Amino acid sequence: MLEDYRNHTKLKKIKIVLFETSHSGNIGAIARAMKNMGLSQLVLVNPKEFPSQMASARASGAADVLDDAIVLDSLEDALKDCNLVIGASARLRRVSWPQLDVRETAQKIMATTENADAQVAILFGREDSGLSNVEMDHCHYLANIPTNPVYSSLNIAAAVQVFAYECLMATDIVVKNKTTQLGYKEQLASGKQLEGFYEHLYQMLQDIEFLDPAKNALFMRRMRRMFNRTQLDVKEIDILRGILTASQRQAKQLKVLKE
Amino acid sequence: MLEDYRNHTKLKKIKIVLFETSHSGNIGAIARAMKNMGLSQLVLVNPKEFPSQMASARASGAADVLDDAIVLDSLEDALKDCNLVIGASARLRRVSWPQLDVRETAQKIMATTENADAQVAILFGREDSGLSNVEMDHCHYLANIPTNPVYSSLNIAAAVQVFAYECLMATDIVVKNKTTQLGYKEQLASGKQLEGFYEHLYQMLQDIEFLDPAKNALFMRRMRRMFNRTQLDVKEIDILRGILTASQRQAKQLKVLKE
Repeated sequence: MLEDYRNHTKLKKIKIVLFETSHSGNIGAIARAMKNMGLSQLVLVNPKEFPSQMASARASGAADVLDDAIVLDSLEDALKDCNLVIGASARLRRVSWPQLDVRETAQKIMATTENADAQVAILFGREDSGLSNVEMDHCHYLANIPTNPVYSSLNIAAAVQVFAYECLMATDIVVKNKTTQLGYKEQLASGKQLEGFYEHLYQMLQDIEFLDPAKNALFMRRMRRMFNRTQLDVKEIDILRGILTASQRQAKQLKVLKE
Repeated sequence: MLEDYRNHTKLKKIKIVLFETSHSGNIGAIARAMKNMGLSQLVLVNPKEFPSQMASARASGAADVLDDAIVLDSLEDALKDCNLVIGASARLRRVSWPQLDVRETAQKIMATTENADAQVAILFGREDSGLSNVEMDHCHYLANIPTNPVYSSLNIAAAVQVFAYECLMATDIVVKNKTTQLGYKEQLASGKQLEGFYEHLYQMLQDIEFLDPAKNALFMRRMRRMFNRTQLDVKEIDILRGILTASQRQAKQLKVLKE
């Protein structure tokens, strides 16, 4: 039996909320994009036409996502059970909302869905006008897909595809599959293991007399940003800490010999 | 004037080749996805219907990509100027082609397009049956988008969207924009700078007596895979090499004192 990623403990906590979508073909294409990437919860707020033949045609093998879709007439109802609401929008220069790109958004969602009873929504506005300020008021973050400045408006189904893809890529699934293929079975390092590594690195940098104490905080933040980006696995943490230990051993010997 | 990423020195070397596409609506949606992400070269090999009203409708503001599209009747002609041909396909378990996921593919493309006169193609097969072995014979790599095993077939325009998105994300553009926002202006390290770093790391690991010579090659490959994933910027390379130098300095002092 093939695995269905829609049962993944994190992916199943993500719902796609479509606000006043006007083209039912888009709703079908979105259902397909969701199922392709392991998302299952679709909520439609005041769709212009649903159910519809066009939606079913474009959904192709994802009719079940359409069948399970919930249709509501208020955005409040769609979002009331959510701990994290992400508003998909073009990058806005003048608003005070915290803004993320879609890759950062997926990281944020993965952190939130660690929590057993978390529920996350990604909210998409109307095809022609996006989200209004009133709708943005429901959002904790605005999220954008980097685009070509001369032509930045994605089709809504294409936008959902990219969001859903980044969510899948941010899970442990893809990393696990890849490491299995390579003959490794390493898991991504946990937050605690990462903290242990940063603490070790901080100590080693002092032992080898590299770190200027006045600049510690800024420097370590930079190191964290760099290594967090890497998404280290457990084995890599072991290797890096092995290198740190070898350096520290020499530093200690040197100190003894100098005394 | 807004910048047009289609003039980006790397993005403009990438062409999307569609082989025997049957739904002209998909061709339009692909043109839109390409322009959104800064790609401009579209080549159609034996499309069922082109030009077409449906393609133009779905292209929305990307009619210019359709206007500039080249229509050919042989795949050989479409690929003959290419140094790197990527075949988009579902993940195949039984073929001997080297296989990458779409994110790794974008990295590969960015490395190839360092070269001034490089030309890269990403080849997409028919909507219903993908690429045959004959078409795969033209490909240097097969590339797949990670998907839900129970429903792994993406719409072709959705697939092009994800490939084009990963290409844009792999350029220096997005990193630059982000680092500018953060107040940094670092550029991504070049291949040459990365090689310099790996050489330095290799030397340092011997100096601190960490590296077991018998395992060197495997170990360094692992280090490369880890740091390549990070996409180091120029400043980060400087910092890391600073740490290596500090360790080496102690190793040298220790050696002198021991003699």
